[in-house]
This record gives sequence, structure tokens and C-alpha cells, in this order.
Amino acid sequence: MAQGIPATSGTLYLVPNTLGENDPAEVIPAQALARLRSLRYLIAENPKIARQLLKRAGATIPLQEIRIERLDEHTPASALADLLAPIAAGMDGGLVSDAGCPAVADPGAPLVRLAHERGIRVTPLVGPSSIMLALMASGLEGQCFAFHGYLPVEEAALVEKLRALEKESRRLRQTQIFIETPYRNERMLGMMLRTLNEATRLCTASELTLPGESIVARSIANWRRQPPPSLKDRPTVFLFAA
Amino acid sequence: MAQGIPATSGTLYLVPNTLGENDPAEVIPAQALARLRSLRYLIAENPKIARQLLKRAGATIPLQEIRIERLDEHTPASALADLLAPIAAGMDGGLVSDAGCPAVADPGAPLVRLAHERGIRVTPLVGPSSIMLALMASGLEGQCFAFHGYLPVEEAALVEKLRALEKESRRLRQTQIFIETPYRNERMLGMMLRTLNEATRLCTASELTLPGESIVARSIANWRRQPPPSLKDRPTVFLFAA
Repeated sequence: MAQGIPATSGTLYLVPNTLGENDPAEVIPAQALARLRSLRYLIAENPKIARQLLKRAGATIPLQEIRIERLDEHTPASALADLLAPIAAGMDGGLVSDAGCPAVADPGAPLVRLAHERGIRVTPLVGPSSIMLALMASGLEGQCFAFHGYLPVEEAALVEKLRALEKESRRLRQTQIFIETPYRNERMLGMMLRTLNEATRLCTASELTLPGESIVARSIANWRRQPPPSLKDRPTVFLFAA
Repeated sequence: MAQGIPATSGTLYLVPNTLGENDPAEVIPAQALARLRSLRYLIAENPKIARQLLKRAGATIPLQEIRIERLDEHTPASALADLLAPIAAGMDGGLVSDAGCPAVADPGAPLVRLAHERGIRVTPLVGPSSIMLALMASGLEGQCFAFHGYLPVEEAALVEKLRALEKESRRLRQTQIFIETPYRNERMLGMMLRTLNEATRLCTASELTLPGESIVARSIANWRRQPPPSLKDRPTVFLFAA
């Protein structure tokens, strides 16, 4: 809807990143890569990682002519209007995440919200989402699901949360999805195998779209009987459904 | 993990479709399109729509040499093993949705589950997900969200559900996401404007990735003050956060 958009305003493109160091053409559509290569202004969770993406995507504009500003979890809300100013003034800009889709499980959402409030057009581009790829590949209920980010670290709180999520999963037929800091993945798996019911189905989806990709989906009873995959330090999405 | 996979088994690729009749290269990565063009066996929600995708993707194998079987909401669970048999016997196969990502908000998940039980490798390919694109573009909380499929049609049940979801959104800081049959979109919008709180933020994301794409995100108070976009018969994702 063009209503309320100043005639001079640019567009805020939401530019996905790869999930690792693979070729962007493997996981980002040609048109999205072409759009990225056309932009002279980027807002990035980490400018260094955005520059690496530009290089791997075959940047055509010299990198030193591309302005890249940082937006991370330390960026104060008061700085967002300045980040949008070049776009409000007519330049197209791109929001780039460190991995996967910007504004999902990363600090970008408040910038997108402000763009809407300022009448700036927002255009999301297609790319890899580890959450969505994991859900597709899990074989778990895909009509109803919830993503919870990180669960509590402290053991008693984590056990309580896992039990509450399992109860909700049964009540709503809802797949529960979450992530963990990679060095704690194996602890998380062990906690789930001790806490969840035998019939609950659990999926681990590791290194999605990368050479080491592995996806394991089975009941808790079968997880307890079979040797687990090694998850340590491998980016992994956890999913379960009661 | 190769463990338990018969040496002769093929791979089940999860192949995304476009969200409309646009060029697949706009929204599906080159590598995923190359994989689709290599497959001689597809399992499709609608074989006619899968053939259309193949044509638009520049199929290199003659269409009459590609076997396409149907898997839709009428397919009995007893038929799934036969659908997987060619893959178990060593042929690579692809599961294709009518739109977007297979096994999410479509009937494909039970086939993926059975593939895991039979030790068949499952590989998800990147493509457009209207749910994920809508969440990125909404500017709403992206660290915690839930997708609910369709809400109840009957008015009293719908009002009750919207109120329950708004309460949960406030308690968990969770973005609520759902879809509606397109001819009822404007009724749904009207119900939300009457039911939700003034400060709740509501986003409608229509015709994502297509020429008519429009994304509107504002508070319920502002939705009540400004003319709404026309949503009738336009595929739309609804999102709100209290």
C-alpha cells in the first residue's frame, strides 16, 4: 500500500544470509542476490559478516563505496531513526543478519517496526531459515507450531519448561521449536531424553544446508535405545511434539 | 547421520514451490531448482501444479518421463509406504507443495515422518515461506512466535480464540500468526479490529513475493483510524503481538 509513503522514500529490503560459509547461490535466490549487489547502504548485525556475504555474492559495487552500519543487541532504540534516515531520504537499504533471515531470532525487528511507523516500504527477500527448514524436515506437525528462542539454562527451570511445553504440545497438537548455545547442545539433548515421555517425537536438525547437515527424528523411546548423533558445537534446531 | 540408512536408499528432497505464478528463479535458489530438474519421481499435493512448476523451472527431463504421485488431505496413511517405495528402492524423490514449503501447513508431514522411520535421508531445500516472510516483514517480536493455521470460523469461538491468543501474546511476548480462507479475510480483519486492544500491533502481509505484495503493520488504534487495505481474495498472513 503506497498510502502514507513519502514519494522520496527508499525501500528497506530484508536480506537473508547463508547459515554457514557455503556459496550463497545454494540457498539464496538469484533475484535476492541481485538485489543485495545493487544496494549501497546496509544495516548489519555484524558489518564484517555482511562484507563477507557481499564478497561471496560477487559484489559489483566496490566494497568501500558501500556504507554499512551496525545494529546489534547493544544498539539503543534511540539510534534506530538515524539508521533509517538514508532510506527515508530516498536511498534503498538492506537489513542483513549474521545467519538466516533478518528480524527473526535476531535484533532487527525494532528497526522494521520503526520503518512501518515512518511509512517506509519493507520488502522481505527469500533465503534460508533454519527454523523453517528444520520444521519441514522433522516430519512433526506443521499446521501448528511455536518457536521459543532459548530455554532457561538453570536445570530445574529447564526441566519445568520442557514439561510445560510437552503438555502444551499435547493439548494444542503443537510442535515446539527452540535453539541452544552450541556448546550446550549435548546437555540439552540429555535433559530432554530424561524429561520427556517415551512416545514424544524429538528431532535434532544440525548444520542445515551445510556439508555436515544431519537430521535425526525419532521417538524418545528410540532416542534412548540408539546412539545419539554428536551435537557439540554444531548449530542445531531442536523440535518435539507429544 | 548415515546410521541405519540402507545403502541402496534414495533421498527425499523437500522442494518448495512459488507463492504464485512468478518466475521460480525469483524465490527459489539456483541449486534447489537444479535439484528439482534432476528428479524423475515427485510426490505432489496436486500433480498438475507440480507439472506447472517443472515447466516454469525449465524442466530438462521430458515431463512424461517424470512419475508424479498425489499426496493430499484425502490420502490414507496406509498409502504412504507405497509412495516412499521408489525412494526406499534407490531413486531420489521430491515432495512438492502447492505453494511454499512442503510439510508446513500442508499434508506432507506424515510422509516425512515415515521416511525417518524407514531410514530414508530427508533433505529440505530453501524456498519461500509466507509465514517466515510475513514474520520478518512485520517488525513484530521475532524471538518467540506461534503459528496456528486457521482459527475457528464461528463468531463466538473466533472472538474467544483471539482474546486467548492476545493474552498469551502478552504473557509470553509471543507473536501470533495465522491464515484465513482468502474470501473471509476482510471479515477476519473486522473481527480483529473489534476484538483486540488498542495497543496491540497487527500486521497483514498479502501476496508476498508477488507483484501485488502489500504489508501493513500498525497498532489497532491506528488500524481503526486509517482506511484498511483491500484483502478480499488475496492470500494473506495475519500476525499480531500485544
